[in-house]
Parts: sequence; C-alpha cells; structure tokens
Amino acid sequence: MIKDPLVVFTPSGKRGHFPVGTPVLTAARQLGVDLDSVCGGRGICSKCQITPSYGEFSKHGVHVEDNALSEWNSVEQRYQDKRGLKSGRRLGCQATVQGDVVIDVPPESQVHKQVVRKAASARAIMMDPATKLFYVHVDEPNMHEPTGDFERLERALKEQWNIDEIQCDLAVLSKLQTVLRKGKWQITVALFKDHTTKTPRVIDVFSGLHEQGIFGLAIDLGSTTVAAHLTNLETGEVVASSGIMNPQIRFGEDLMSRVSYAMMNPGGDREMTSAVRDAINTLIAEIAQEAGIATHLIMEVVFVCNPVMHHLLLGIDPVELGQAPFALATSDSLSLFAKELDLSAMNPSAQCYILPCIAGHVGADAAAVALSEEPGNSEDLVLIVDVGTNAELLLGNQTRVLACSSPTGPAFEGAQISSGQRAAPGAIEKLEIDPITKDPRFRVIGCEKWSDEDGFWEETSASGITGICGSGIIEAVAELRLAGLMDENGLIGSAEAAGTERLIPEGRTHSYVVHDGTAEGGPKITVTQGDIRAIQLAKSALYAGARLLMDEMDVDVVDRVVLAGAFGAHISSKHAMVLGMIPDVPLDKVQSAGNAAGTGARIALCNVGARQEIETMVRQITKVETAIEPKFQEHFVAANAIPHKTDPFPELNKIVTLPNVNFNAGSGGASNDGGRRRRRR
Amino acid sequence: MIKDPLVVFTPSGKRGHFPVGTPVLTAARQLGVDLDSVCGGRGICSKCQITPSYGEFSKHGVHVEDNALSEWNSVEQRYQDKRGLKSGRRLGCQATVQGDVVIDVPPESQVHKQVVRKAASARAIMMDPATKLFYVHVDEPNMHEPTGDFERLERALKEQWNIDEIQCDLAVLSKLQTVLRKGKWQITVALFKDHTTKTPRVIDVFSGLHEQGIFGLAIDLGSTTVAAHLTNLETGEVVASSGIMNPQIRFGEDLMSRVSYAMMNPGGDREMTSAVRDAINTLIAEIAQEAGIATHLIMEVVFVCNPVMHHLLLGIDPVELGQAPFALATSDSLSLFAKELDLSAMNPSAQCYILPCIAGHVGADAAAVALSEEPGNSEDLVLIVDVGTNAELLLGNQTRVLACSSPTGPAFEGAQISSGQRAAPGAIEKLEIDPITKDPRFRVIGCEKWSDEDGFWEETSASGITGICGSGIIEAVAELRLAGLMDENGLIGSAEAAGTERLIPEGRTHSYVVHDGTAEGGPKITVTQGDIRAIQLAKSALYAGARLLMDEMDVDVVDRVVLAGAFGAHISSKHAMVLGMIPDVPLDKVQSAGNAAGTGARIALCNVGARQEIETMVRQITKVETAIEPKFQEHFVAANAIPHKTDPFPELNKIVTLPNVNFNAGSGGASNDGGRRRRRR
Repeated sequence: MIKDPLVVFTPSGKRGHFPVGTPVLTAARQLGVDLDSVCGGRGICSKCQITPSYGEFSKHGVHVEDNALSEWNSVEQRYQDKRGLKSGRRLGCQATVQGDVVIDVPPESQVHKQVVRKAASARAIMMDPATKLFYVHVDEPNMHEPTGDFERLERALKEQWNIDEIQCDLAVLSKLQTVLRKGKWQITVALFKDHTTKTPRVIDVFSGLHEQGIFGLAIDLGSTTVAAHLTNLETGEVVASSGIMNPQIRFGEDLMSRVSYAMMNPGGDREMTSAVRDAINTLIAEIAQEAGIATHLIMEVVFVCNPVMHHLLLGIDPVELGQAPFALATSDSLSLFAKELDLSAMNPSAQCYILPCIAGHVGADAAAVALSEEPGNSEDLVLIVDVGTNAELLLGNQTRVLACSSPTGPAFEGAQISSGQRAAPGAIEKLEIDPITKDPRFRVIGCEKWSDEDGFWEETSASGITGICGSGIIEAVAELRLAGLMDENGLIGSAEAAGTERLIPEGRTHSYVVHDGTAEGGPKITVTQGDIRAIQLAKSALYAGARLLMDEMDVDVVDRVVLAGAFGAHISSKHAMVLGMIPDVPLDKVQSAGNAAGTGARIALCNVGARQEIETMVRQITKVETAIEPKFQEHFVAANAIPHKTDPFPELNKIVTLPNVNFNAGSGGASNDGGRRRRRR
Repeated sequence: MIKDPLVVFTPSGKRGHFPVGTPVLTAARQLGVDLDSVCGGRGICSKCQITPSYGEFSKHGVHVEDNALSEWNSVEQRYQDKRGLKSGRRLGCQATVQGDVVIDVPPESQVHKQVVRKAASARAIMMDPATKLFYVHVDEPNMHEPTGDFERLERALKEQWNIDEIQCDLAVLSKLQTVLRKGKWQITVALFKDHTTKTPRVIDVFSGLHEQGIFGLAIDLGSTTVAAHLTNLETGEVVASSGIMNPQIRFGEDLMSRVSYAMMNPGGDREMTSAVRDAINTLIAEIAQEAGIATHLIMEVVFVCNPVMHHLLLGIDPVELGQAPFALATSDSLSLFAKELDLSAMNPSAQCYILPCIAGHVGADAAAVALSEEPGNSEDLVLIVDVGTNAELLLGNQTRVLACSSPTGPAFEGAQISSGQRAAPGAIEKLEIDPITKDPRFRVIGCEKWSDEDGFWEETSASGITGICGSGIIEAVAELRLAGLMDENGLIGSAEAAGTERLIPEGRTHSYVVHDGTAEGGPKITVTQGDIRAIQLAKSALYAGARLLMDEMDVDVVDRVVLAGAFGAHISSKHAMVLGMIPDVPLDKVQSAGNAAGTGARIALCNVGARQEIETMVRQITKVETAIEPKFQEHFVAANAIPHKTDPFPELNKIVTLPNVNFNAGSGGASNDGGRRRRRR
C-alpha cells in the first residue's frame, strides 16, 4: 500500500499524511495549523497564502518534488492578475497536495500572528481579537420555508463555520435584508465573542467579501489627557494614534477636585460624564479621519482609566470615591455596548470592554500596566511606577504583587508650576546647570540641539522657549540641588550666597532664572520656591507609596524600577533618583515602559485571553490603601528632603561632585532623611 | 427513637419529617412546596403566610395538637399590628414545627399561583414570570477588601439566594451605591431571567423591602389599535387595560398600504416606526397613571403583532413583506431591552419579549393565539379565526396544526363602510330586520336596550346613533339577506320590488336605511351596495383561507370554530354563518375566545415556560401561503355569494323562513356556490 503524501507545515512543525487532492487549507485545519481564512476556502479572501518549499529537507526527512502541489489554477491566476501574489506564494484553499511537501505559513497568513512592539522588554501581543470576519453564503428565502433572513444566516454560520448560535441587535437586523440582497446572498459577518460572551454577537454585516478591514480602539482615559490607538483587528497594526485634553479639567485639575465638584453641584457628575463622552466621540472621529477609515468599521473599544474617570465615564457619581472606605460601584471588568456610553462615533453595535479596577484608588489603568508589564511573572523584584495626576505603583515578583495609588497631584505634568506647561514644542524638557558658572543649558521639545549648541536659537525661533514641562521641572529641581543652589530642604539660596545673578528675590524667597525671553517678547522662565515645594510634595507622595509597598513586602531594596506613562518615557532616571522620587537602584535597572497603560489596553483589545488573564491577575493583587496606613504619612513627611547633594551617577556626565551649600544650616535638614536611611543600611 | 414531627402541606400533599424547631418555610423549601418569600425568611415580606390546621386528619393520618407550631412571636405580632394578618394565618418563616402538623399554603402565598381567567374554556395562567424580587443584606465595604458594591451584591445573592452570577446595565450601576446606603445595606433586587437568559440581569434595586409591586405589560399591537394590559408580576392581576389607535393609520389603513408607503417614501418606514413607538410610550404613561403606579415599576413588556407591525416596531423596513417570497428579516422570538425600541416610559432597564412570527404573513399575533388557544392540544379539529385588518387562521388538532393569513381588509372593523365606525358608544352593534315589515331594530354600544324597547331613545340621547361598527355591519348584511332584501349575489333590491320605503336609490344601486337621524341633526345611517361589496370581499377572503387550510388538512368539515379578537367577541356566530364567513358547524360549537392574541401575550408575560412553549409550537406549525396557492383565488371567487337565504338556526330567534326574493335571477348566482358545495356533500 502506498502511503498518502506527507505534509509538513512550518514554522509550527505540524505534520500529517493526506490523500492526494487534499487542499492545503483543509490539511492545515485538520492539523490545527494556524492558517487564516475569511472566505472559508472559496478562493476569494486570499488570507490563506502559503509558500511551498521544494527540494531536500533532511530536517523533516522529506524530498519535495516540483509537482508536490497541484498546478497553479485559474482562481490563483485571477487573484494574481487583480492584486498580485508575492513570488512563490500559493492560495492554500486552491493548491492541493500531490506529493510529500513542506509548506511555510508566513506570519501575515497566521490568525494568531504576533504583533511587533518597539520596546525590547515588552511582551509580544498575540492576535486573538474578539471580533473576527466570516464570509458566508446564505440560502435564499422561499415561500415554502418561511424562516427569516436572520435565521437563514444563523444556519449558514452553523453549516459553513460551525458557529452554533448567534445574536444581534436591531441595528444589524434593520440592514440585514438589504445587505443580503445587495451581496447576492454572500456576505461577510463581523462576529464578536469575548471571554464573557455566551452567544456570539453579529456586530455588522457587509455585502460580499469585506476587504476594508475592521478596527478597534485602545483608549487610555487619563485625568488630563485622553489617548487613543486605532488598531486593525486583523493585523494588529496601529493605524493611527491621537490624543486630546480631557475636557473635565474645567471642573477640576485633579481627581479629588472633580469628585468635590460632583459633591457640591447637583448633576455635576452628569456634566462631567457628558463632557468626557463628547470628547471621546470627537477623538474617535478625528482618529478615524486621520487613518482614512469609516467610523462604522470601528467595532470595539477598550478603556483603561483610573477609578474616578472609570465612574465618570460610566455615568456613576464618583462621590463614594472621595471618602473612606472609597467604595467602587463596581470593580470587575465591564463588557458593554459602546452606545451605552453614548459613543456614537463608532459602529452602532460596537462593543466596549473596560478593564477591572484593582481598588478604589487603583484603577483599570493600573490593571493595564500590570497586564503590559506582568510583575507577577518577574523573577526579580520590580517596582512599576505609573505617574500621572495620581501615581499608581505596583511592586512584585512571581510570589506576590502589591498595588497602591499615591496622590502626587499634577506637578509632574507641569501643572501648578509657575512656568509649567504641558509637553509641547517650546517646552524645556531637559536641563543641566553648570556647577561652576551656575548657568543652565537646556533642550526644548521640537529641537534636537542643546541651548549652547550652534543653531539652537535659529531652530527654536518658531516655537520660542515657552515654559517647562514635567520632565524639565524634575531635572531643573535636581540640578539646582546638584549645583549647590538649593539645600536638602529644598530652599533656594540668595544670589549673594550662591554667587550667581540667576538667583533673584521673589517675595521672601528666591527664584532661579532659567531663561529670560522678555527682550524678545517671550516669557521669563524661572523655577520658584513654590515650584520646588510642589515637586517636593509630589515626589514625597510617590516615594512614600513605594516605601509603603516595600514595608508590606518586607524589603528594603527593589531589584529594578519600571517607569510607565508618558512622563516615565521622558524623565531622566538619574534626576528622579537625585530628587528621591524613586528608590535607588543601579541606573541600568531603571527602564521606561512608555505608555504601559495604553499598551495594556492594546493587548486587551487584540487578545481576548488577555482579558481573562488580567481579571484573574487583579483578584490576586494585594491592595494597599495609602489613605488609611499611618505609615504612609510618616514616609511622606520623611521623604520631603532632597538628599543627594552629589550626583549618584557621576560617570554619566561631566558634572562633578560639589561642595554642599547649605543655605539654611539651622533647619535640621539632616534628620529629615528618615525615609531613606533604612534603605542605606 | 422518637420520630421527627410529620409536616403535611396542602394543597400539594407534599410531606416530610422535620426536627422540632424547623421553620415552616424551611420545611416547605426542602420539600419543594411552592411557598413564596421575597425576604428570604427574615419576617419582613409576609409573602410566606400559611394556615395551620388543627385536629384530626384521617386523610393524612395525622392528629394535629394545638401546640403543633411554635407560639405566635413578636415578629408576627409586629406584622399583625402594622398590616394585619387574616385570621388563622401565621408567617411561615417565624412559625416552627413542634409536632405533627397539616399546613395549608393559600393561593396568594404560592409563587406559581394560577391566575383566574374569565372564559371557561381558556387555559389557566400559571405565574412564573421572568422578573422576580429578592431581598438581600449586602456586606458593607471596607478598606481592606476593595471589591465594588456590585460585586458584594453579587456575593449576597449567591450566599442568600444561591444565584450564581448576575449582570446589570449602567442605569442600575449608577444608582446602586445610593440605594444600598439609603437601605442601610438591605435592598430588594428585581432580577430578570427568562428562558434565553444565561446570566440573570438586575432590572432595578430598591432600598429596603420593596412593597409597591413590579409590573409588566402585555401589548397587542394591531394595525388599527394598540391594546395593553398592565399586569402585576407577583400576583398576575391585570391592574389596568387600555388601548389607543395605531397612529400609523395616517400612513395607510391596511398593512399593504403601509408597506407601499415605506416603498414610495424614503425614510417612510422610520416615520412609521417612530409614530408607533411614540404612541406606545403614550399608552404606557396613560395606563400607569390609570393604575396609579410609577412607570419605573414596569419591568417588562411582551408584544404580539402581525409581521408588518413587527418589523415597523423593530425599525426594520417592511418592504420585503410586500412582495414574494415575503421574507421576514427575522422570524424567531426576540428578547431585547425595551429602550432599544425607544420605550422610555418604563424602567430604563426594562426587558422586552416579542413572540416569534409563524411566517411572512402570519405573525406573532397568530403565535399568541396559538399559545392561548392551544390548537395542538385539541382532540377535535378546531378552526381558530382571529379577525383584524388581516385575518389569521389556525386549523388543527393534536396531530397537526396549520396556519395562514388572509387579506380581509378593514371592512370587518367598520372601516371602508359608508356609515362605518369603530366600536364606541353610539355605534350600532346588533341589528335585526323584521322579515314582514322589513323594519330594523337595533342596539347601540352603551345601551342595554333594543331600539324598540321603552327608554332606548332617552338612554341613547347623549351618544346619539352615530354609525355601524364591525359586528353591526355583519348582522346588517346577513339580516338583509334573511329578510329577502338582497339576493345571493349581494344585490339589494328596489323599494318597489321589496315593498319597503327603507330601500332607497343611490346612483344605479340601492341602499337600506337603518336609521335616519337627520331631523335631529344626526346622520342618516344606511347600508349601501358598496358596503355589501366590501363585506363580501372580506368574508370571501376569510372563508377562502379557511377552505385552503381544510384542503391542506384534507377535510370537508371542522368540529368547532373559535372566534378570536375584539371582533370575535362581539360578532354573532349565526350571522357569520349566514354570511358564509366561517364554515358551518353547530352553533354551540362556535366559541368566542375574546382577545386571544392579547391573552397569549399575557401568558408569555406571566410565564417564562410559555415562551419556550410557543417557540417550539411555532416551529411545528405548517405554514400555508395564501398568496401563492392558486386554490386560494378559486375559493375566494367561489365564496363571494351569500348562500343562506334561510336562517340556519331558526330556533334561536323568532325570524321565520322567508320566500326567496331573487332580484337578479339572471346573474347565475347558484353556480357561485362552488366553495361551499364540497362541504355539503
């Protein structure tokens, strides 16, 4: 008896014997090889492209003859003529097995393809979205079998895709008859099924084969900004990213002032809810236009946000989040219709997933960071810091993960800073102070040069030098300390004491002039004593939160620190440590994770398994409530000082150790270092 | 060993031994006795009232001592003081078993109580609604366990009611925190779970024990009228019934003219959809006001309607229903949020159930009739006729059920009749013509007397005599035939030929003057030749539909006829048979089922099992499409004649057999009787 030909698929290595004439797609399906197909093998969608290899394959023990697959057929030729196939490619539904063969499934033909991410440390995103496309032939109606069009669609999905039961809403039902007739009873169905779905839901139907793609949005809804990534749900590709300011800012800069607004103003929560929903609709319309796609092709949205934003997005009065015991209305993840949130700038049946909250102060944004950074899979002890208007902290390793939130306020985002501004062209983002001359050099957003390099002033003439953004103010404060212009209590000295005209009196305190643009009609950019106090409060809160988690974990040191958030991407680790924002670790153990919350949202958008994963993870995280832990207050007070008078990492720049200039020797500053002493022992 | 006391429950007869001290409610639950409780045995809701019996019960083999139950306790006393308990009643959750005892569960304490219906033949409605109340104690939040309020409610339902998983929408979530705190963590949950629900859904939450009841609406959405029954979902009691005209009438009197309107006017379907939805909202607000209940207590609505109304209610363009093959967009039942239909005058989370359609011309209204009348359970062959603007017919017995629809038009509802009007005070609803004098006597709606009885004119002076309603016109036409004023072709004779001045010329034909109120400023009410033609067309369509089903069933006679619909309740069976509207059966085999479609809606509202039942039933019904059956046309033409020149039931009245007056002997009328001949053989 002659054995059926052997078919070996790469890269999976799956193999089996199949009768001559078996389509490659059929063989792949029977072996569970990850080979895509929307049209179900009708030679229409071309998703099942494969690359046969010919010759000797000692690894697989196969010799592949040139005629191992059937000849190029008319369907393939038609596709070739119309769209073109890459050299060596065949359509898996057309090519049939004729002899032993080795077949490669290229990444773009895999359903569960991996999406490449930039950051090397970041986890890969495996595509397994909740919404997928299915092409079907639906039986025409006839008088003798009076079932509805929807019921015949249901039957087609059962027969052609083995999908058992479906549901849909009225938006789909009301267009179904037209779409079926226009498509001559051949339509593409966008079907949604996530980990909570018991019956798959038709999100939309398209006449014929739908080739314009389907999309989803990953939205990081922050107190200050709303950032969205529009993602192709078939390829995982981010086709556009965009952000806008959160319009709720007019009701209060930080979360607690918005909660207060809701408390003080009847209906205030509803005002804020509609403001943010309107803004999201605007953002969606803009991002779709930028990407050049129709908004009805957006089938899903995933949100991550802090608890107050979470409640305001959902239309829940956040008043309970403003007072102990900070009870969330709901902490679990939510699966909704996007239209329940009045998100009309999407497909009318679009689905919405909101990640679970960890606690009343640690929201779905922190959960998303956990999903992206996976502290629970870390072998060493990692501290993940996501700094926004509130800072969320995660500390953990494979044994245990802890979480807390710390009220840093908006200073790190450049708000409540005299010359502060958000990160935009013209904002100072990096700054060094020469320890000898006490003069600064700096860089502004939108220009690659330092201010003391040739061409800087020409290149920045358009934007001007307009202010200091969050990362700039951190560096400025740290550099003031390193340059000996400020003592460990954060007090700026006088021009006389420090020997520089850059220190100018301002009321009973002093300010440091970074840049005086008044001659050119620009602003005079200074760092005031008030700015330093704001940064001290913020960094103390952040540090105290980290200490509290370390106490709970019973450790004095962490192995590495991950800085998440837009801020984390731009901050200088060295300056953060000089300031005492984060515990000291070797500088190469400080990583930036970029917008980890946004990445977590993207992961949940692209992979339904990740939704299950984060829900399980959140239940296992130990929550630490900073607001009721007396030790938080202790750590907070103790962390007020700016201890490093010398650069802890002198090898990294030319700034050398300075003599300590203590402007206020009588203040007993040294004893303020309690929060850090323990770690040094 | 002394045996535990024996507890016997009546009327179920369930019995078991329970340890001394077992609460009666606990014993009932363990035995599966149907004893209600909303508060879960906390002595709050008083739903578990029982009546212990004392003395000798030879039937049960028990002697019950006076102290067989524990003593009356303070909880019972408190309830007695506050609300009063019927004599002999105890609270099942308070009274504990002390000795052998016989306990009666009165109907009002049964969850699955039967609802009394008026019609003797009608099936009983067993209460088992989808929405039920559950009283729970929810744990308070604390800082150490940061779950959301909803998650703690979920846990409470699991622990206290063994309900595993729940979901809710944002309307509930947004009020939950306030309701919990106002109720001091004790709330009543209205939970929806029908046969399709995989996860029960919270419809609403109430602080403390909710005692104002929860309600549902059964709505019969007809082409001409919309009728609603507001039903208490705990007791099954109909607390108010109300109806309004379907405002879509302005787009077309009958279904096909509305479909045409949608075809001819872009957006016309949407106009009709919002018109009917607005009208339903108005109806709901009115009926709630009439019953004195808040609209948010309406948790459910069940709709029955014909296919065109079905699509227009759902917002689906009915254009496909206007042309072969009459494809429904969907035929299965639908479970929706009421708000998806813009029904805002209800609880914001209210659920909507729409019965399945049988075919493109036989809608959910016919399914509801089938649910109410159960032809598939009938031992004899029953023809069920539901006459509205379209007539739906069901023919069947335990072996098989057939269904079809017949385009009768609105004549039976008094529309397209010269003096026609809808059934309202002042409308002639009954009419007899004296075969000798040829003068009529009649009754009008709103007065119990005949027009030749003393006091009639005084009692009708307020309403006046304004027109003829559907049942009146049937009787008028039949009586014209019986009085010999009209031949079997439906042609009215002249005054000369018939010897009465009541026949007056009108163009080339004649009319019969029923009542001339012009002297008093009222209308002159006549039956014109046109009216007779309209009734002939309508009755031919109806009769042809019945014949078609009988052909399909291969029978010449049916055993009984059920007349459903408002019309069916008022029509005289004798006159219907004189006209030839329905096949001849003995007069005592013609029953009126009242508004059977509305009753079917009520059954589906009160009992989730009935929803499953009708869905199964609909799949088993054989659909017959009148529009494509050539025999329908044959039957229709043949049924045009009005064959009975003599009263087929002379014993029922004083009208005696008359000589046949054939005004038009040349018309060959006799051969027009083909449709009836077969049955007579």
